[in-house]
Order: sequence, then C-alpha cells, then structure tokens
Amino acid sequence: MKNYIKHDEWNIIEEGFNPALNKVSESIFSIGNGRMGQRANFEERYGGESLQGSYVAGVYYPDKTRVGWWKNGYPEYFAKVLNAPSWIGIDVFVDGEPLDLHRLEILRFRRQLCMRDGYLSRSFTARFEDGREVAVEATRFCSLVDDECGALSYRISARNFEGRFVVIPYLDGGVRNMDSNYDETFWEYVAASTAPNRSVLTMRTKKTDFWVTTGMHYELLADEGRIQCSEQDVRRDDYIGKSVTFDLAAGQSIAVRKYAVVLSSENHPKADMEARASAMLDRVVAKGFDRMMVEQSEAWGQKWEESDIRIRGDIAAQQAIRFNIFQLHQTYSGEDERLNIGPKGFTGEKYGGATYWDTEAYCLPFYLATAPPAVAKNLLLYRYRHLPKAIENARKLGFDGGAALFPMVTMNGEECHNEWEITFEEIHRNGAIAFAIYNYVRYTGDDEYLADYGLEVLIGIARFWAQRVNWSEYRQRYVILGVTGPNEYENNVNNNWYTNTMAVWCLTYALEALTAVRHAWPAKYEAVITRTAFDERHETGTWETIVEKMYYPVDGERGIFLQQDGFLDKELVPAESLPAEQRPLNQHWSWDRILRSCYIKQADVLQGIYLLEDRFDLETIRRNVDFYEPLTVHESSLSPCVHAILAAKLGDEERAYQFYLRTARLDLDDYNNDTEDGLHITSMAGTWMSIVEGFAGMRVRDGRLHFSPMLPVKWQSYEFSIRFRGTVLTVKVSRSGVLLAHSGSDPLTVFVFGHPYRVPREASVELAGGQRI
Amino acid sequence: MKNYIKHDEWNIIEEGFNPALNKVSESIFSIGNGRMGQRANFEERYGGESLQGSYVAGVYYPDKTRVGWWKNGYPEYFAKVLNAPSWIGIDVFVDGEPLDLHRLEILRFRRQLCMRDGYLSRSFTARFEDGREVAVEATRFCSLVDDECGALSYRISARNFEGRFVVIPYLDGGVRNMDSNYDETFWEYVAASTAPNRSVLTMRTKKTDFWVTTGMHYELLADEGRIQCSEQDVRRDDYIGKSVTFDLAAGQSIAVRKYAVVLSSENHPKADMEARASAMLDRVVAKGFDRMMVEQSEAWGQKWEESDIRIRGDIAAQQAIRFNIFQLHQTYSGEDERLNIGPKGFTGEKYGGATYWDTEAYCLPFYLATAPPAVAKNLLLYRYRHLPKAIENARKLGFDGGAALFPMVTMNGEECHNEWEITFEEIHRNGAIAFAIYNYVRYTGDDEYLADYGLEVLIGIARFWAQRVNWSEYRQRYVILGVTGPNEYENNVNNNWYTNTMAVWCLTYALEALTAVRHAWPAKYEAVITRTAFDERHETGTWETIVEKMYYPVDGERGIFLQQDGFLDKELVPAESLPAEQRPLNQHWSWDRILRSCYIKQADVLQGIYLLEDRFDLETIRRNVDFYEPLTVHESSLSPCVHAILAAKLGDEERAYQFYLRTARLDLDDYNNDTEDGLHITSMAGTWMSIVEGFAGMRVRDGRLHFSPMLPVKWQSYEFSIRFRGTVLTVKVSRSGVLLAHSGSDPLTVFVFGHPYRVPREASVELAGGQRI
Repeated sequence: MKNYIKHDEWNIIEEGFNPALNKVSESIFSIGNGRMGQRANFEERYGGESLQGSYVAGVYYPDKTRVGWWKNGYPEYFAKVLNAPSWIGIDVFVDGEPLDLHRLEILRFRRQLCMRDGYLSRSFTARFEDGREVAVEATRFCSLVDDECGALSYRISARNFEGRFVVIPYLDGGVRNMDSNYDETFWEYVAASTAPNRSVLTMRTKKTDFWVTTGMHYELLADEGRIQCSEQDVRRDDYIGKSVTFDLAAGQSIAVRKYAVVLSSENHPKADMEARASAMLDRVVAKGFDRMMVEQSEAWGQKWEESDIRIRGDIAAQQAIRFNIFQLHQTYSGEDERLNIGPKGFTGEKYGGATYWDTEAYCLPFYLATAPPAVAKNLLLYRYRHLPKAIENARKLGFDGGAALFPMVTMNGEECHNEWEITFEEIHRNGAIAFAIYNYVRYTGDDEYLADYGLEVLIGIARFWAQRVNWSEYRQRYVILGVTGPNEYENNVNNNWYTNTMAVWCLTYALEALTAVRHAWPAKYEAVITRTAFDERHETGTWETIVEKMYYPVDGERGIFLQQDGFLDKELVPAESLPAEQRPLNQHWSWDRILRSCYIKQADVLQGIYLLEDRFDLETIRRNVDFYEPLTVHESSLSPCVHAILAAKLGDEERAYQFYLRTARLDLDDYNNDTEDGLHITSMAGTWMSIVEGFAGMRVRDGRLHFSPMLPVKWQSYEFSIRFRGTVLTVKVSRSGVLLAHSGSDPLTVFVFGHPYRVPREASVELAGGQRI
Repeated sequence: MKNYIKHDEWNIIEEGFNPALNKVSESIFSIGNGRMGQRANFEERYGGESLQGSYVAGVYYPDKTRVGWWKNGYPEYFAKVLNAPSWIGIDVFVDGEPLDLHRLEILRFRRQLCMRDGYLSRSFTARFEDGREVAVEATRFCSLVDDECGALSYRISARNFEGRFVVIPYLDGGVRNMDSNYDETFWEYVAASTAPNRSVLTMRTKKTDFWVTTGMHYELLADEGRIQCSEQDVRRDDYIGKSVTFDLAAGQSIAVRKYAVVLSSENHPKADMEARASAMLDRVVAKGFDRMMVEQSEAWGQKWEESDIRIRGDIAAQQAIRFNIFQLHQTYSGEDERLNIGPKGFTGEKYGGATYWDTEAYCLPFYLATAPPAVAKNLLLYRYRHLPKAIENARKLGFDGGAALFPMVTMNGEECHNEWEITFEEIHRNGAIAFAIYNYVRYTGDDEYLADYGLEVLIGIARFWAQRVNWSEYRQRYVILGVTGPNEYENNVNNNWYTNTMAVWCLTYALEALTAVRHAWPAKYEAVITRTAFDERHETGTWETIVEKMYYPVDGERGIFLQQDGFLDKELVPAESLPAEQRPLNQHWSWDRILRSCYIKQADVLQGIYLLEDRFDLETIRRNVDFYEPLTVHESSLSPCVHAILAAKLGDEERAYQFYLRTARLDLDDYNNDTEDGLHITSMAGTWMSIVEGFAGMRVRDGRLHFSPMLPVKWQSYEFSIRFRGTVLTVKVSRSGVLLAHSGSDPLTVFVFGHPYRVPREASVELAGGQRI
C-alpha cells in the first residue's frame, strides 16, 4: 500500500517525482472519454520506467495464444486491447540535448488530475547539468464533446538561459504491446500525409485489419510578440511529425498546442478516414483549445450533476469515490453497443481490455443508476448480439440444441481465454449475464426488453444449465460437477453452492420470463419460440424437474451454505493469522497450496447471498458472513464491495466502512501493488455500490426504491443522485435524517427502512421508528 | 489402429512405401544402444514428411518454458532431449539430380529391423522420370560393444544406365527440435576438422554447454575392381562432409561405409573430444564394418539369452513382446546412474526425453528381472542423487524440514514440468519412488541398500506426506486435498484413494525401514539420523498417528474403494457406449467434460490394488475391477498392462490376453495414433509385466519366487528367463505343465500355485492340485 497521492476533494495530486512510482501514476492519472484512453505518459520522451499506453475503443488484436499444454476447445487467440499510435508525443531538444526527466535534475514536479473539469495537468522545472533550467506546464484531455479528439497545451520556458529549442510534435505508429505473447508487432503502416502544421498517419492492425488514422495539428503561441520559428517535416519508419526550431531568451516561454484526432475503421469507411481526420482537425482547430476546455468542463459538469457522490467529513473517502466515478465515466459512455468495459478500461494492457463478467456483476448497477436507461441497455445488447457465438462456444464444449455459454473473456463474442479451469469451468458467468437482464428489467421496468431480446438469451442460458447438470444416482439429486466459482482460489470443484444456486435461479427466471412474455406479447413470444426452436413442453418440464431436485451443499450444524462439496475437510484458520509477508497469497504460495487452503479470493457464497438476499433471513446472512469473511483474503478487487454491502445490511458500520475504504482507494493507494498495470475499473463500480447499496441500502423491490441508510461515524453526511424511471432522485443522508429530492413532476413513493414515503419534489424524510443513522 | 507391419518372429518388416506412414515407421524402426539413438530417417535426403531424430543420452536443453498463465513455483524451463547432429546422412546426386524418394517413382521398398542381431536395413529401387533406375541397400546399427559408435553400409547401384554419382557423407550441426517452444536453435558451432575420408564436428548446446563431437569416416567399396573417385571437402555453415564423385556403369554398384562416433562432454573432457573422436574412429575403422556386425550380433545374442520371451502359436504376440524387449534394451543399458528412461526413449522428442514416474512404476520390474542387480540399483541411485533437489523442490511449494517431493518430470533432479494440476498435484509419484526401493529390496534381498541410500530417501518422502496431509475436523481423520491421481482425467480431487493409500504405505515403510536399519546397521543408522536431522520420537510419532487415522473413500454398498471423494456423483456409463468417433476422448472432448465424466485414463484404484495386492482378498479385487474396468478408456499406454495382470490374477484369461495384445502391439499397430511422435518405451516394460506377472503370475514373497501360470488359449507355450538372486531361471509354461530350469549351483525353491518346489538345475514341475493351465 502506498500513500503518496494528496488528499483533495476534486483533484488527484502528485507532488514531486518518484521514478519508482511513475508507472503507478501513469495509471492513476489516465484520461479517457469512452472512445479513447491515454495513460499519463509524458509528452516528451522519458528514458525511465514507463508503460506507454494509448488505446482506441473496439480496436483489438487476436494475439496468438500462448499455452503450455494445449486442451481441446482452447481458442486460438487471446484478443488484446492494442497500444495504438499515441497522439500526445512531443520530442523536445534544448541546445541539441533531449529533454528527458530521467536524465535531468528535477527541481519541481506536479501532476494533477482535475476530475471536475476532466483534464490532466503536469508542471515541472528541470535542470541540465550545466545549470540551464527548463520549465514545462502541460495540460491535456480527451474531449467528451468531440469524442474522437484530444488536445493538449505544452508550454515550455527557458528559465535562466538563452537557447535553441527544437520541439517535434509527432505521431508514432511503431508502438508495441508490452504483453505481446511472441514479441510481435501488431501494426502495419498504411499511409501518411503531411501539410503545414499537420501530420496524418494511418496504421492497420495485422489479422483484424482495423484501421486507425491519427491526425495532429499543432500551433505555437508565444507569450508576447512573435518568435521566429522554422518548421520541417520529420519522417522515419512509422514516425511522422514536424520539427520546429526557435530560440528562447531567458524567461521567455512558448506554448505548443497539439490537437489530435483518432479515427477507427469501426466508425468510418477506410477510404475516407484520412479526409475525415483532416476535416475533424479543421473543426477543432477552429474551435480552439480554450473553447474545447470550456466544453469539456461543461460536459463533465453534466456527468457530475447526475452521478456525483458528495461526502462531508472525510476528504480521503470523498476523493476516492469521485476518482472511481470519474474513471468509470472515462471508460464507458454507453453510446455504442459494440463497446464494453475491460477490467482495466483504457489504463493498461492487462486482461487484454476484453469483457469479463465484471460488467454484468459490478458495472451494470452503476450505469443503471447514473446514466440514461439506453446505456445499461447497450451493455445488455452487447451480449444479445453475441448470443450466436455463445451458442457456438457451447457447441465446442459438447453442448447442443441452442445451449449458450457466454465467454469468460471476449472482444467479439468469441472466447479468448485459455485456462481450462477458467475458460471451461468458470461457468457461473452465464448466471451473471442472466441476472443482468433481471436487474435491468427490475430497475427500469422495461419488461418489453424480455420479449425483444432478453428471453432469447435466457433460453440459451437455461438450455446450457439443463445440459450441464447431471443426475447423481447416489444423491438422487442433480449436481454440477467440475466448476470454478467466483472464488478462483478453488478450481474444478463439485457443487459450488453459488453456481448451483445461480443455475437454478436462471432456470426459474427463464421459466418466469417465458410465461410473462407469452401473456404480454404473444406474437413476440411465438417469434422467439420459432427462432429458438423451443420445445415448450419438453424443455420447460426438464427445467422444472432440475429446479425441484437440485442439490445444494450445506453445513447443517453451522447453519451455513457450503462453498462446495468437501469444504469442511479444509483446515479452517482465519486469514488474519497469515503472516504479512505471505500476502497476497497468489504472489507467495504455489497454486496447489492456495487451492487446498480455506482462503477465499473473493465473495463466493456471499456473492450469491448478495444477489438473492431477499431469500435469506438476517440470521442466515449473518451466519454465512461470520463463517466466510474471516477466510476471505480479498485478493480480487471485486471482493470488498460485496462484503461492504453485506456488512452494512447487517448493521456493522465499522466493517462496512473498512471495506468501503479498501475498495475505494484500491488504486489511489495501490493496495494490491499492481496499479502500475492499470486501474481496476470494473471494481470501481463496486465502490459506488458500497455507498449506494451498502451505506444507503438502496434496493428496488416491486418497482419501488427502498433505502436503509447508515452513516459512517467519521462522515457528517453523504449525498448522491440516481436516475430512476425518468426522474433523478437525490438522497442525502446525515445525522439529522434523510433528505430526498427528485426531478419528476409527480410525487415519488420511496421506502425508507421499509416505510413508504411520498416524496414531492423536495422533502426531508423523517425516519420511522426512530432509527438512528 | 494400423496393420501394415508384417508379422514375423524376429523381424519388424515394412514392405512398400507409404509416405503417410513414414513418421510412424521412423519411430518403429529406431535403433539405439542406451548411449545414443537414431530414428529410422533415411540416409539420403527426403523431401516428404519426416521427423529427424538423433539423440545423445544425457544431453538436454532447458528450453524456455511456455506457459499461458504463470503460477508461483513453476520452473523456468522445460528440459528437452536434444535432436543432435545426425551421423547417418549421405546426400546422393545422380547426374546432378538429388536422390529423394519424395520425388521419384518407388518400384520396391523394404524396411526391416532385425531384432536378433540388432540392426536396421532398408532397400529400395527408385526410378527417375526419364527411366533411370537406382537401387539402394542400406544397413546400420548403433553398436552395443562400442557404445559411442554407429556404422552404416549404403550400397547404391545404377540399374539400367551409366551415370555420374555424387555421394556426400556428411555431418550436420544445423539441427532443430520440432518442439522448440520459441523456434530457437539449441546448438552452437564449436569446431570442425577434416582429414582424408574423415570429418569431425563439435557443437555445443546453448545454456547447458554440453559439447557433442560427432565424427565420421567413410570408405567406398566397389563390387569388383576399382572405381575412379575424387573426394572434395564440403562445408557450409554447420554442415561438413566429403563430396565423392564417381561414374557407374549400368548394373554396377558401390558401397559407402560410414563409421561414426558420437562423444558427449558428459563422458569426455571437452579439450580432448576431438582427438578422442579421431582415435575412436581409427579403432572402429580398423575393426571394420563386418566385424562390428558380428560383435553386434553376439552382444544382442547375450541380451536375448537373458531376457527373451518365446511364445509358440502366436506370431503377432511373439513379434510384439520381442519388439518391446528390444526397444527397452536399446533405450537403457543401466551402466550409467546419471541416465534414465524417457517415455519415448531415443525415438522422438515428445515428453522431452525426461524421467517420469514411469521408470519406477513400470520399468524397474523389467530391469530387476532381466539385468544384473546393478542396473536396477542405478535407477534407484538416480533418484538418490536427486534427493537434495527434491527437498528444494518441496521447499518451493511451501514444505520444510527436509520434506522431499521428487519432480514429475526431470533431467537433473529439478522439476521441469509446468501444469499446476500435474507439477504440483500429481504427488503420488513420491509413492512410486518409495515403492521402487521396496521392490528392489524385496526382489534382490539387498537390505543394505536401505542403510546406504534408501532410508534417506524414505525419510524425505515420509516427511513430505506428513506435511501434505491435513486434519479434517469434520471427519476426525487425516485427509489429502487437491491432488491428481494416476488417472490424469481427474484434477485437483480430494482424497484420491490411491494417493492416500500410498501415502500411508510410504509412512509405514519408512517406519519399518527405520527399525530395520537401526537393528542391522546401527552405525549407518546414526549417520542417516544425523544427516537428515531426524527427530526420532516426534517424527515417528506423527507418522504413526497419520497411519492410524487416515481417511479412505469407499463405497460400502458396492464394497469398493472410491477413486476419490464425490466419484459417485458422476454419471456411471460404461466406456463401451461411447461413440467410436469420440475416441480417444482427449482428442475430442473439452477438458472439463473429460474431468466431470466417469472415464478413467489409466489404472488408479486398480494401480493401488496391483501394487499392494496381498492386502486384498480376491473378491475385493474382483469387485473393484468389475466396477472400474468398464469405465477405463486406457488412453494412457501405461494402463492396459495393469488390467492385464489383474485379469490374469482373477483367472480371466480372455481379458488378460486382450489387454496383453493392446499393450504389446500399441506401437506396431499404432493403436493411439501417435506412434509417429516416438515409441511408448516405458509402457513396453508393462508389456513384459503382462506376461511375467500376468500370465505367469510371478511374485516375490519373503524372498521366494511364486508363479501362478495361465496360458492364453491361442498359445501353445511361452517361455522366459529371469534373473533372481544370482541365478537365471527359465520358466516354460505349456499345456503339459510348467518347466523350470536355472543356472545356480544350489537347488532353488520356487512356489507354483502356492506349493513349494525344490528345483534342481532343470526340472519339469508337476502342478499341484491338478490346476489346468
């Protein structure tokens, strides 16, 4: 755990430069707009440790899979988000020497991410060996308004000398992925063009043939008067730019404005990309940097208006939740149903930038509550579009008759992960994808989604489960053998309670959805039945039998659900007794030792209890939490939020707060020592859930919002807004009570601690029964 | 399954050339002498499908591991047997055109492995497009007598034309392994030298710096008179040879004799290798090809004298068992304790040529019974020398206090396999290594081996098991979680019966060995105790408790041992109901489907029953065989022999015979469609066991030999020799009875069907109780 980020309500601030933390900061200070993302690499070259990262949404590469021992059914490739030609680069030479903070003495350094207005700034003063001092002030952003554009301002000053400066704003197509399996390059040159102040470079990916055109246009602004400059084209290999030479007197400075556009062939005809890039450059250059900054600030203002959480009395917590919300918005805007949310967003290469079950399990609730319904719907449609590939995927694994297994990791619907214990066995992901449909319909009330899209997916998933179970003669029950549950510190176990429970939940929900759609939209129902060749009597009969006769492992004595068969054979030693130097376990123990231990990577039984909590009484929940929590090591970023929510539900404010902090500042404080690889974007949604579903206890039941708020002792108040069925509701929880306000024209009925309140446009809700908050 | 090898008692014969079978034949017709091995590649170039393979014992390469997802504790490299510079190559050009069977019309082709005399011959006639016909007769062998030498005779005839021939006997250091993980070359050039008729090439392996010097010396022999030749040196890159040009008239022929030596720096000082190669060449050239052939025949005669099995009435069975014995002798001579037996011997690259538990579980009995005791002892010493590395290996996995885990796959004692479910979890190998000590002592009576070497290994292994078990509060028993048993179609299971049983057997045997050594060799005992820092009271106490309180899964209702916890949850459908096109399962099913199925790759519970059979009554054995055999798919070559032996024990001659055939002709008939990768050398010892322990029912109990012979209905008789405690005993089983003869001076007491017989030098033993054979 590190602690070098300054606490501030709206800003992420790094003061002073520590090269050892540079890659961590490069992740933390990342910027993005849902279409593109950029790690906080320096504009000028840096000879020290750095992970260069510039990403374009939807552009991936099917890197040849690296496998030790091949298994039937493994995919041939692992799709990877691509490190794309970067738009930020400016090479700087001072009297012929490169400006490189790795070589210079750094007198002053500050990096700041302004979350309110959505930009990154950096300033430093550096000294050459002979005493010449150069200062730089750089600001940049990925525009929310012009979402294929980025812009930066790079002001450079000669502090105490007169010298010759060469700045080369450039585009470089010769980029690589650090995680290339066979050290291949993924890009090939297509074309480049040049015009005064402007360079345009088109590269294509090998195999997938995505084209990306990156264009730049630079301007120089002197502080006062004119400075004589000469421009020269620079070109070597896939590096293209403009070399600009000028002299600065002591104290004089000049600003380079670099406008950039990044176009992908996913959104533009290849033949037009170069022309469109130029036209787009014309447009933003005409608009100008300052105007773009203003628009950026307004667009972010709008996002904050709808999704900010304001915490009083705890700056660290305030900063953290805003950072999480900020990064989520930077990653996914929900406007394009082809896109999704990689676990690292656009902040690193790890996990290939592909889609995991994280999206459904953790991110969906955030977007449901903080964005227009179309955004969440697009996340669902993404899977709907992949249904044929999910059916094909299941077929490769021996299933038939339209059974669908959605991939563990994917870019385009095809599976691209290759660990048998995950790829083939972590099948609970199918449950999360079904549950997301339920969650969406429950939250939005958009029942018709089922008829149009949802039911078809549910049928595919239900068919999978119906084939994946088998009848145990011995138990006279259906069992599910050989799975990996959410707790990936167990592999190939039998009857994972969570998986069995979710399988039956899926079958039940599919049966309900069939009935609901049949009644409400008979024509659409018939169309689905025909499309899926659904055998109503036989298939529903089978599903009902499985629902009725599923086996679930339990420990009757303790009154808990058992994570899997045989769990009680383990030595049950609380995680707190583990020596600190052995944590995290996955960096210190061999895999077999982890597997046979009792330690739980992330919520597993508790994940099931979280999702289906209304089935369980508080005492059951408490017994399970009391049993599993001490064994949980939270070595997945997705774990603490579920524990936070359950702790809050059980009224354990202290633990809820601890888990909240752990999830909220995971990256800012680099808890797991891996932030340098990129931010834990998907778990950031879990942080939001920890507050809204945890502290505020928000639930939707029967189309109504429910809250059971608590207030961490350290906080004076917290306040958040959510969208719910056409209105924006603001909830403020303080010691003195709960304040509800909403934007709708009609009064809204909201339940607080189980009591219904009719909320006019703004109202302070008295707590029934005198609950203390 | 293929059926193209002609049935013959002493020869393996291929008539006609089928390019599609060439790689299979290259494996089957391999030659070797324990120091070197050579696949049956052609001497001349061949443009078709071929797996070039020339191997030098003990020379390996630590190829950089290829892993999809790294786990703590994985080794950095996978040691591979190296494809070494080949000594057989002769490039042939006829009037400037290469002689290449891939391009020519083949009029006649025959490949023959003469097992009695130990050589490979090949002859063919081939026609160029214009009608010129060339005939070749080639013979070669790896000398048993001069075990760093090979020799070949290559006679070439111009059948129907007069033409100019160029032959280039050469050495080529530019060889590669097909299975190189990153397409690296493993060899680097060191030096080459040349002299009339002679070339010498020294190459070194990267990383391991093994040097191999290959030398050749050629002679030309005309049929009659002299033929004018001119010799020229040829050299390009690492290819070195002699180009010899001559003219042949129609009907004329010439023979190239190529003598080769292969020296490894494992056996020679690097500085002397080149000189020694030349001296050795001088020696064998002086001896001459014909003399070498005679010596080869005599040496093989000696081997057959001691280890032949003669079957009357079944040529296919006779050929098969001889082929198995022949290949085992070609692979391992037992003279060098640094060497061991790779699953493919010197016949292919697969499995890296490294040592697996196969050696102890399958090969040791063969060498115990067919070779001087020093040979089996060397196999044991190999592991003894590796004990420190086994302790280090265990330490990497979290064990301490001298606990030893021998590697799953190794060249030098270090683990070099990287599948967690195998590397970390297939720990039953430790049991096989302990059992081999027991087996050796039981067979040879060499109790002192325990004092000198065995006990130390047993202590390391027992310590491992004592730490690897854990106490289950729930069961009030010790359990072993997260293992892979011999049946590798299950991974990460709990309480594999075989593993639990062998663990307790190891602890028990270690306790017995402690007692035995303490009494018989108190000084050696003290030395071991000191060396191992053994805590007598505490450690033996712990071991005794575990022995007493181990848990074993059973099915009380069926009266069988359960392969592992949860096995009865599976759908138990006999393997015979599997569609043929889905076999072998591992080529058609995804791994999860295999894992959750009931199908058993190779004997698991039955392996335990085989090893410890005296613990179980016949009915128990029968119940377990009846339960597990129908579920066993024998997709490991190591499986059928155990089933054959148990079937024989149960008196089921028909099944015993079927399993025998399956193991015996596995490679000759290419049962598993993988012979092209190399022969299944280690399972060949299982074939031998199927006859000697299966049909003949040989056992050693209390220092005495026991037999319970049966005779397959198709056979008239079978006869084999075994070494036992200083004598060679010959056993002949026919319808009329059992004939025993031995070489010892004193009468030998042998039990047949439980009745003791005193056998003088030669005796026909009457069967007691009138058992029918």
